[in-house]
Amino acid sequence: MEFNFSSRMSLMNGTATREIFKLLSRPEIISFAGGLPASECLLTEKLARFAAEALSGADAKRALQYGTTEGFADLRRELINYLDAAGIGNQTPENVLVVSGGQQGIDLVLKSFIDKGDSVLVENPTYLAFLQILNSYEGIARGVDATDDGLDLDDLEKKIRLYGPKILYCVPTFSNPTGKTYSAANRRGLIEICARHGVIILEDDPYGRLRFKGEHIPPLKSFDASDTVVYVSSFSKIMSPGLRVAVAAGPKEIIRKMAIGKQGTDLHTSNLSQLITLKYLQSGELAADIQKSLPIYKLRKDAMMSAIDRYMPEEFIHTDPDGGLFVWGRFNAPLNVKELLPEAVEQNAVYISGGVFYADPALGRSAIRLNYSNESPERIERGIAALGNLFKKKIAEAKRNG
Amino acid sequence: MEFNFSSRMSLMNGTATREIFKLLSRPEIISFAGGLPASECLLTEKLARFAAEALSGADAKRALQYGTTEGFADLRRELINYLDAAGIGNQTPENVLVVSGGQQGIDLVLKSFIDKGDSVLVENPTYLAFLQILNSYEGIARGVDATDDGLDLDDLEKKIRLYGPKILYCVPTFSNPTGKTYSAANRRGLIEICARHGVIILEDDPYGRLRFKGEHIPPLKSFDASDTVVYVSSFSKIMSPGLRVAVAAGPKEIIRKMAIGKQGTDLHTSNLSQLITLKYLQSGELAADIQKSLPIYKLRKDAMMSAIDRYMPEEFIHTDPDGGLFVWGRFNAPLNVKELLPEAVEQNAVYISGGVFYADPALGRSAIRLNYSNESPERIERGIAALGNLFKKKIAEAKRNG
Repeated sequence: MEFNFSSRMSLMNGTATREIFKLLSRPEIISFAGGLPASECLLTEKLARFAAEALSGADAKRALQYGTTEGFADLRRELINYLDAAGIGNQTPENVLVVSGGQQGIDLVLKSFIDKGDSVLVENPTYLAFLQILNSYEGIARGVDATDDGLDLDDLEKKIRLYGPKILYCVPTFSNPTGKTYSAANRRGLIEICARHGVIILEDDPYGRLRFKGEHIPPLKSFDASDTVVYVSSFSKIMSPGLRVAVAAGPKEIIRKMAIGKQGTDLHTSNLSQLITLKYLQSGELAADIQKSLPIYKLRKDAMMSAIDRYMPEEFIHTDPDGGLFVWGRFNAPLNVKELLPEAVEQNAVYISGGVFYADPALGRSAIRLNYSNESPERIERGIAALGNLFKKKIAEAKRNG
Repeated sequence: MEFNFSSRMSLMNGTATREIFKLLSRPEIISFAGGLPASECLLTEKLARFAAEALSGADAKRALQYGTTEGFADLRRELINYLDAAGIGNQTPENVLVVSGGQQGIDLVLKSFIDKGDSVLVENPTYLAFLQILNSYEGIARGVDATDDGLDLDDLEKKIRLYGPKILYCVPTFSNPTGKTYSAANRRGLIEICARHGVIILEDDPYGRLRFKGEHIPPLKSFDASDTVVYVSSFSKIMSPGLRVAVAAGPKEIIRKMAIGKQGTDLHTSNLSQLITLKYLQSGELAADIQKSLPIYKLRKDAMMSAIDRYMPEEFIHTDPDGGLFVWGRFNAPLNVKELLPEAVEQNAVYISGGVFYADPALGRSAIRLNYSNESPERIERGIAALGNLFKKKIAEAKRNG
C-alpha cells in the first residue's frame, strides 16, 4: 500500500544526532556527536530514594493516577522558586508549565504560533532539532549573523524588517552548537529590538547552570520588562534526561495556549518524573550537586582543548566555552566534513558535521560540533587525535590536488 | 502585547474533560465525567518495587540517561509478545513504537498524515480528545452513522466516496463514549471497505482488556491482512495513567514517520516509565492483575445500571456495556444537557454533555456520557439519584411549557 503522508513529513528526516546515537552502542566508538550529560553525574541512588518516596504514602496515588496538563501545583510552586533563583522573578502558577523535556517546550511554542510559511529567526548556527521541529510546522527558518558575544543586532533588525518573523529562537548561554554566551549588553539589545517589533523570543536554556568558568550572566528573560520572552529550561543536563522534565515560563496567554497544545499530545508529563523532580527541588540539594559536577565538565573540556591544540590542523578555528557541553570549530580549508564522517567512524570517532545547524546548510560545510561531556579525558584525547590525523591528511591531499 | 497565535489555536479549546477535572478536587462532587481507572486497582507497592529495580544496578543509568525515540529494544520485544497474546501476531521491532500515552499515539498518526483541510472519518459519537487533536492539524472530522454492533457500513462507504478521507478513527472495543463493541462481522466489513479505498484505520484500544462480561472479540488489527490498521493500546487503564506509556503498532513505513514525529516533540518516553512497564510485562503478572480488577469494574457498572433503572427518567435510553469505563445515554425529550450542567454541579454530580463527542455537536444535544470506574457503588447511586431528580424535574417543566 502506498501511503499519502502529510506534506510536513517530506521536510522531516531523522535528525543527525538521533541517527548517530544508533552507532554508539559500539563501545570502541568515541563519540563527540551527542549531547549527553556525564553519566558519572547521574545521581542514581538519590533519585531512586525520591522515586521510592513518590511511590509510597499519600503521593503514590498521584504518581500513578491521571494528573493535570499544567503539572502538579506544588511542583509549579517549586519551579517558581527555582526560576527566581536564576534571576527570573515575579512568576505565578499561570506563567509556568511543566513540559516533557525542553524539546516539548520548543514544540509547544511553535504549535502555538507557527502556521505554514511563517518565518522564524535563528542564530547562524543554531540547535539542529529546532530546525527539525520548525519543519514539522512548515515554518521557515531565517538565519541571523552572529558575533563572538551574541547576535549581530544590525542583522537582527534587518532580518526582522525583511521577513516579519513571529519568533526569534536562541540558546544565549553556552549555545548549542557553539558553546558561546551572549553578553549582557547583547541580551539587552536583542530584547529591545524584538520588543519594539513585536517578535516573541524563545530562549532555550538547558546549559545555563553548567558554568565552570567566568562570570554568571542572567537569562535573557531576567532582562525582559516587556514580556517578550518565553523561557524553556530543562532538568535533562542537571538531573536526568531520561525522566523528561523541563519547565516553560512566559506570558500567561502563551502558557495557556501551550497547555492546550500539550493536552493534545501527551496529556501531561509523567507524574512519577514530576514527583522525583519535586522532591529533588524540595531537598535543596540540587545546587550543591551541580557544583560538584562542574569539575568533571571542566576536566573534559580542558582535555578537549589540549587535544585540539596538539592534534588538530592549524586550519581548525574553534570556540573555548566557559560551560555547557559543546565546542564548535571551522576549517579554514576546503573540507567537506559531512563526506568525511564515514572515514571518521572507521577511525572510531564521531562528530556532527556543521550543515545541520544552519537554516542554509551550505554555511556549515566546513564546520563541526564536538561534544566533550560524556567521554573520559583519555578517550577525548584518543578521539581528537584520530580526527586530527584524518583532517590533516585530507587538508594535505586537498593542497596537493588544489 | 497582542499575540498573533497560529490559526490552529483558534480551533482548540481546553477539552471538556480537562476543564471539569479542575472541579474534582472538591470531595463532595461525585464525578461521572472523567475516564480514570479505579484508583483501588493501581498497584502502588508492585510498581514501586519495579521502579526500585529500574533505578538500581545496570538499569539505573539507562533509566536516567537519554534513550532512543523508538523505545527500549527489550521493551519493544515484550510489547510484541503482548500484542501477540491479544491476537496481533507477526509484529517486528520496526512495527512497534513506544509512545507517551495513547493520546500521543493518536497525535503522531495525525502528524504523519493530516494536512490542513484533510478529512478524517469518525464514529458518531467519538472520543472527544480525538476531535481536539484533529483540530490541532486543521483536519476536518466527518461523522459516520453507527449501529448497535459497529459502524453503518453503507454510510461508511458513502462517506468515503463523498469526502475521500485519509483515515478512519475508531474505538471498536468498549467505545469511548458509548461503551459498545463492534461485532467481528462489522470489523471484517469495515477493514474490507477501508482497504479497498486505501483508507488507514486508526484503532484506539485503551479498554479492550477490561471485559467483565461476554465473549472476547479480537482487535480490528487482528483481522487486518492488508496492513490497513495502525493500532494504539495504552497501559493507562490496566497499569497506570500517570506513567504515560502506550504502544503503537502498524506498517513499518508509518511507524517510522511516527518516530520522526516523536523526535520533534518529546524525544522519547520517560525511560523510568518504560522500565517499570518492561519489568511488569516480564513478571508475567499483568494478566492476573487485570482479572482481579474486573469484579471492581463490574460492581460499579452494575451499581450504575440499577441506579439508572431506579432514578433516571424513562425517557433516558442508554447502553449497558460488557466492559470499559462508560455508559452513554440519550434523552427522548427536548433537554439541553449542556445548559443543565451547572445545576448538576450544584447537586454535586457531573457528567459530560454529548455535543463534544460529535463532529457536529448539535447531534449530542440531549446525550450524556457517564463514567462509572472511579466512584464507589454508594456514591454512584447517590450521584445518579441527584441527576435523575434533576432531569425528571426538567422534563416535567419542558412538558408543562411545551
